Amino acid sequence: MTGSGNEVSVRLHHSEALKFNADFSDGRRIDLDSSKEMGRAFTPMELFLVALAGCTSMDVQWIMDRQRQKVEVFSVAIKGNRREEDPKYYENIEIHYTLVGADLRRDAVERAIRLSIDKYCSVLAMVKESVKVNIRYSVKTGMEPMQEYTLSPSLSSIPNP
Amino acid sequence: MTGSGNEVSVRLHHSEALKFNADFSDGRRIDLDSSKEMGRAFTPMELFLVALAGCTSMDVQWIMDRQRQKVEVFSVAIKGNRREEDPKYYENIEIHYTLVGADLRRDAVERAIRLSIDKYCSVLAMVKESVKVNIRYSVKTGMEPMQEYTLSPSLSSIPNP
Repeated sequence: MTGSGNEVSVRLHHSEALKFNADFSDGRRIDLDSSKEMGRAFTPMELFLVALAGCTSMDVQWIMDRQRQKVEVFSVAIKGNRREEDPKYYENIEIHYTLVGADLRRDAVERAIRLSIDKYCSVLAMVKESVKVNIRYSVKTGMEPMQEYTLSPSLSSIPNP
Repeated sequence: MTGSGNEVSVRLHHSEALKFNADFSDGRRIDLDSSKEMGRAFTPMELFLVALAGCTSMDVQWIMDRQRQKVEVFSVAIKGNRREEDPKYYENIEIHYTLVGADLRRDAVERAIRLSIDKYCSVLAMVKESVKVNIRYSVKTGMEPMQEYTLSPSLSSIPNP
């Protein structure tokens, strides 16, 4: 963490073309770029998606732990579609959580995702008004086949056909 | 860039505790974490700030180039203050641009920043409704001392005292 208390800060330095280095005070660095040859750099919009997915992933992991649900494999795929016109922000974003465990309860998974979306995810909270976010999740428990669900905006969810 | 056309995508895999790896399809990776010992990882809210600062920095650099303004040193400091309660998003964010050049015009700098803020910055466009963003910029041209300005929400700006 950088900054004191609830403050977070970082400084960007221009290097060349559209390349920037983002330096945190403790020495951590991310390279930014927007070109054909990205090397080890990321675009700002890529970093935004990682921030959003990371935020809700940590929430869900944390809540599953609190619910004493043992998750053996957990991955989250996120994709966003940008507008054609400036500003080219994401018009819609899809987040797809996949959780595998010997004894997972689907209601516990859905509860964890819903708490993140509705209450905890800080990055999502900032974009809720402007971006349409679709949520899906897949659960595999024990020997049963993987089942996929769509999280409805209301308080229920329906299995995908 | 990942994904085709205007689509961007990334997949996160849980490793341990609250650690996740974010993997792009071309092999680029960012490590995410939220702990005392961050190593080379970043928190989601840190990545969000880098995304926002990176987005507007690239805009400003690009517009300054278009205006044939030669910027010799360009850095952008960004800091955000998080709410105390969940969701702990940034209540306010300050962005401070610093540009140095032999022959910089202040009006060209301000125009570049304003175009980014009002028209181009995709990350900012998504959070405008929910986050208060304060903008300052410092310009040093030739032998003159560095001057700092605050960008007002309207179409003018006033020098700081």
